[in-house]
Amino acid sequence: MAVGNVAVPEIIYAIDGIKLSATAAGVRYKDRDDLVVIEIADSAATAVVTTKSAFCAAPVRVLREHFAKTSPRYLITNTGNANAGTGADGKRRAEDICAALASRAEVDSNSVLPFSTGVIGEPLNSDAIIAGLDTALANLDADNWLAAANGILTTDTIPKVASQKVTLDGTSYHITGISKGSGMIRPNMATMLGYVATDANIAADLLQEMLAAVNEQSFNRITVDGDTSTNDCCVLIATGKVSSQVIDSPEHPHYQPLFIALTEVFVRLAQLIVRDGEGATKFMTVKVTGGKTSQECCDVAYAVAHSPLVKTAFFASDANWGRILAAVGYAGIEDLDTEQVSVSLNEVMICQNGTVASDYTEAAGNEVMSRPEITIHIDLARGTASDTVYTCDLSYEYVKINADYRS
Amino acid sequence: MAVGNVAVPEIIYAIDGIKLSATAAGVRYKDRDDLVVIEIADSAATAVVTTKSAFCAAPVRVLREHFAKTSPRYLITNTGNANAGTGADGKRRAEDICAALASRAEVDSNSVLPFSTGVIGEPLNSDAIIAGLDTALANLDADNWLAAANGILTTDTIPKVASQKVTLDGTSYHITGISKGSGMIRPNMATMLGYVATDANIAADLLQEMLAAVNEQSFNRITVDGDTSTNDCCVLIATGKVSSQVIDSPEHPHYQPLFIALTEVFVRLAQLIVRDGEGATKFMTVKVTGGKTSQECCDVAYAVAHSPLVKTAFFASDANWGRILAAVGYAGIEDLDTEQVSVSLNEVMICQNGTVASDYTEAAGNEVMSRPEITIHIDLARGTASDTVYTCDLSYEYVKINADYRS
Repeated sequence: MAVGNVAVPEIIYAIDGIKLSATAAGVRYKDRDDLVVIEIADSAATAVVTTKSAFCAAPVRVLREHFAKTSPRYLITNTGNANAGTGADGKRRAEDICAALASRAEVDSNSVLPFSTGVIGEPLNSDAIIAGLDTALANLDADNWLAAANGILTTDTIPKVASQKVTLDGTSYHITGISKGSGMIRPNMATMLGYVATDANIAADLLQEMLAAVNEQSFNRITVDGDTSTNDCCVLIATGKVSSQVIDSPEHPHYQPLFIALTEVFVRLAQLIVRDGEGATKFMTVKVTGGKTSQECCDVAYAVAHSPLVKTAFFASDANWGRILAAVGYAGIEDLDTEQVSVSLNEVMICQNGTVASDYTEAAGNEVMSRPEITIHIDLARGTASDTVYTCDLSYEYVKINADYRS
Repeated sequence: MAVGNVAVPEIIYAIDGIKLSATAAGVRYKDRDDLVVIEIADSAATAVVTTKSAFCAAPVRVLREHFAKTSPRYLITNTGNANAGTGADGKRRAEDICAALASRAEVDSNSVLPFSTGVIGEPLNSDAIIAGLDTALANLDADNWLAAANGILTTDTIPKVASQKVTLDGTSYHITGISKGSGMIRPNMATMLGYVATDANIAADLLQEMLAAVNEQSFNRITVDGDTSTNDCCVLIATGKVSSQVIDSPEHPHYQPLFIALTEVFVRLAQLIVRDGEGATKFMTVKVTGGKTSQECCDVAYAVAHSPLVKTAFFASDANWGRILAAVGYAGIEDLDTEQVSVSLNEVMICQNGTVASDYTEAAGNEVMSRPEITIHIDLARGTASDTVYTCDLSYEYVKINADYRS
């Protein structure tokens, strides 16, 4: 069960210049959508970030080569098979799929970017995907964001959609995005599939910088199990349909408000992945302040967010703050003065000066731990840097899902 | 249930110069031994390594101060309470215990080293410990190694003892050691309590070097849950009773065989902790060869050993080798040529040249995965360095233990 507010937005704005379709191609399972095609207008600028895994999947390798050559016109995503650990054969299959789509759509094969998610190490059923292309292309529609959000899911239990409208100087910009992922989640440079589009007109170089920046605050700050995927990819498209005026620098008056709106959409999509983390019963925000550098704040936040002992204590609603301190202790800050460290859970201060807070009670601790959404705030009291990571608890269900499911 | 051969040795050699006792002092639970005192002969040299956690526990701080001043004569260990995250009060209580023992034994308080293990963040019941000292001292005996091994346990299900005799040039040396730990196990410089003694006569400086070296191959190469404890400590004592001839350099003819025997004892004690890992059903050796440096081999081994997806796959006996590749991929070797990587499970080659091995069958994979002891051998094929890490799987029982038990 996903944690907290995971509702699909009441209004999902279509993005002029983007059409989508979801098709049941039978890649691994019958009768569920497993093939999503996204068509991008010729006018658009597109930015991409991909996994830093050395074992990146075949589609990621192909995607990087294609993206280096030309601007994308089609994104094609299959679920059920990650096409990772599949060697030269896997790469050839990813190329075949792109070529088949390109010939049907009459575009350059390099303008098609492939994405895959699912089991690692099995040959991809590229024939099934190619057989589904005619239907996929025939069904492209600007209002298919929710269908696409459902079509890219694997062990996810909910579709993940965020959508915003920003009106600046009489111009209305729209941003809509979808994401997927609930296990093997500790993205490094991107998540296990996120697609965001806006109708804003943003220069390609600037768009890539914006993607890198917002990604760093969103998909690169979530963890479910600490396992970085072989297939993580995130795409940001600016179709430019809303205005002929190009936003080409951070000094442009619309840049900052658009950046904030994009950040909100990205953070929402990233948080939805954690809220739908495998077996999750709690959504935790690990906020570390008072660091000398953001890196050390990030290290502490991840140490806490990855600790199986912290995660099982949250599953049990047990205010076992000693486990949080232990994780802070091994996070690698060698000269940390632990007698300055404080820890609170939401509004309840549990630890001050490295030991239990004077007015802390177990009752208060257990009450706050029983809530589904908890902010763990760790103050290191040695500087002004801060960082935040989002994670979930570790439950029986996590073990069950990953012991049962060949993912 | 602990995994594989975890039997106590048929012969546990007493070490001349060492006496031990285990007492039920009622620190946290009634009617179980929770106070262990080890008496060390005046002649002995002692080496110590302690946790690198910034949040190291009060007894660890006291121990470091005492050890810097004089050679230890008594080690006092309580279970049930780690005396960690307890600030100045915790340190005072650890000092009080040392002083109380010192006055009864008529030694310098600095020659008493305190050790604690158990729940973090609660005040230590030092009164109960002090009240138990007379009994503890009265019961000291050279043949109490097994009682002491039982007396230091917490969530452990088995006592952990290793013992060896080495005869060199007609001189018989004995080595006996005990350890404890099954959760919060990812020692960094030492384990959650290991005590090893030999009657060899080894110079103190050399002994410290030997401890650092053997520790690096044993306790510093195990992980259950990746959580480094606040209380990890390991002690190596050489009583010198066997001979007046001091071993004071690696060139001494007895150095190398003793070093090998010590390594065997340490590796056995470390492996026993993993075999008794919380909820463990499988014992896994992650051996990485063909690296450019041992550090990168170690990084890869830990990435695999810490991956919850790998650990749950082993729990399920599912030969899901894609998860192993994924962990190798995110271990941080940026220029890894994945097409050279091979992976085998015991004698079954599962992955060659970065993809499934040509003669691999699911049947063979599932058969080997069903065994309780599995060596995951990852060859990086880029150099001659290697490293090995020991770990266990992640089961329902792990979550149950850590969601139920306030440790």
